[in-house]
Amino acid sequence: MKIEVIGLGVVGGSYAGALTAAGHTVYGVARNETTIAKAKSRGMIADGGTDAAAFAPLADVVVIALYPGQVAAQLRALAPYLRKGTVVTDVAGIKSVIRDEVEASLPDGIEFVFAHPMAGREKRGIDYADPSVLKGANFIVVPGAKTSPRAVQVVRDLAEDMGFAHIMTVSAERHDEIIAFVSQLPHAIAVALVNSDEESAETEKFIGDSFRDLTRIASINETLWSELFLGNRANLIRSIEDFEAQLDEIKDALQRGDKDKLESLFRSSTERRNRYVKR
Amino acid sequence: MKIEVIGLGVVGGSYAGALTAAGHTVYGVARNETTIAKAKSRGMIADGGTDAAAFAPLADVVVIALYPGQVAAQLRALAPYLRKGTVVTDVAGIKSVIRDEVEASLPDGIEFVFAHPMAGREKRGIDYADPSVLKGANFIVVPGAKTSPRAVQVVRDLAEDMGFAHIMTVSAERHDEIIAFVSQLPHAIAVALVNSDEESAETEKFIGDSFRDLTRIASINETLWSELFLGNRANLIRSIEDFEAQLDEIKDALQRGDKDKLESLFRSSTERRNRYVKR
Repeated sequence: MKIEVIGLGVVGGSYAGALTAAGHTVYGVARNETTIAKAKSRGMIADGGTDAAAFAPLADVVVIALYPGQVAAQLRALAPYLRKGTVVTDVAGIKSVIRDEVEASLPDGIEFVFAHPMAGREKRGIDYADPSVLKGANFIVVPGAKTSPRAVQVVRDLAEDMGFAHIMTVSAERHDEIIAFVSQLPHAIAVALVNSDEESAETEKFIGDSFRDLTRIASINETLWSELFLGNRANLIRSIEDFEAQLDEIKDALQRGDKDKLESLFRSSTERRNRYVKR
Repeated sequence: MKIEVIGLGVVGGSYAGALTAAGHTVYGVARNETTIAKAKSRGMIADGGTDAAAFAPLADVVVIALYPGQVAAQLRALAPYLRKGTVVTDVAGIKSVIRDEVEASLPDGIEFVFAHPMAGREKRGIDYADPSVLKGANFIVVPGAKTSPRAVQVVRDLAEDMGFAHIMTVSAERHDEIIAFVSQLPHAIAVALVNSDEESAETEKFIGDSFRDLTRIASINETLWSELFLGNRANLIRSIEDFEAQLDEIKDALQRGDKDKLESLFRSSTERRNRYVKR
């Protein structure tokens, strides 16, 4: 297929590389020519440029790999140039907040399939794009109100081509609820954990694997993640509060000196973790 | 040197294997003969048995690799059999709560050096002992009130022999403060995170690297960790409260829709994380 990828950051660049490797013809669009030159020299794209409209008429599929708030505007700018039957998709980590504007921006004859590739890196830019991060990752598809089964299948097939392992279809509402818990809450926790250090110069000398693991994602793209958090506020606040209630159970057991309660909380977490992650 | 290791669980077993590999003669003590037979067949110990007193007269160094609450009683049971000049050490993850009783149990002519190897596994028992987990890990030494520099050096040298990378000496009070933050708080967070799931059957299908990393240590030895938590209650409660205050800053910024504040919190966490962990 001929695929236009708009935005060649970590996710867009990884998509472009993975789709090219799978035999598709990829056109890349970025804000500056340096990025295009890098993508070409690394063999990620067949052609590219800074003008999204120039490649739109050629594309069977368009991937808008921009920040959530930019998706609808990009779609509107592109609309006059798309051929009938083209499937457009995105990579945004939140869905409910962008859905209505995106669907209202959709021209007749064009289909939109929301998608969320659950892979990425804490760095930004094409220098950190790497198709291998997509391998084995989860991929969530959120069909729009008028999306045809054919268009959903096109996007699922591309996800398979890129190496995603589990491809699931859910509603926008359910997507945002789940993401608040499995992705946004862990990021909020990692940030709060690092920021709660008394910041003696000594911390780094004493950290072990557990602290390292829990804080890896505290190194975070602040522009993207503040948008993701605010675009899913209600769900994330609820997840934080559920988490705090559980942490307070531990704190209360400590204050009471209640060993039985602590052991019971630890048995519960052990049983759940071993069920979730079988390795 | 001739070294008696009492307790051949994950930490004691790993010690035994690493010390044997470094050329020391290791005697292992465990509650049952099956464990001793495994340790012998895996080449971790030169000899061993279920009676700690039997090997005490042979030892230059005794490692009590038991739970924190068992250290002083084991020392008292062993006291009549130790040669003058023997150095005894432990592996407990908390120090202030055991220090006074251990020091009161110390016979004349014997020295005790508290130690905390910051390595381990979430499983228990000799089947999960593995000297390689000690390589490159941090090792904390806490001298007792009457410990000689010679005895401290003996334990530091053994830590180097086992492959620990950073060997630090601190007071018991400071050890417990730091450990509450860098080790116990992450474990409390991981447990609370897993336990706060609404437990739809779907979670496991949606988790990504971040959730996996943050919850690895939610699979936890409940007997040991409830003892570690309760033995360091005041410090851990303070660490939990400092963390909750930071998490509330994120929640408050979400409630106010304050993007600038979120970005500033994320920049702070990114700067700190990149400083702590240089990789």
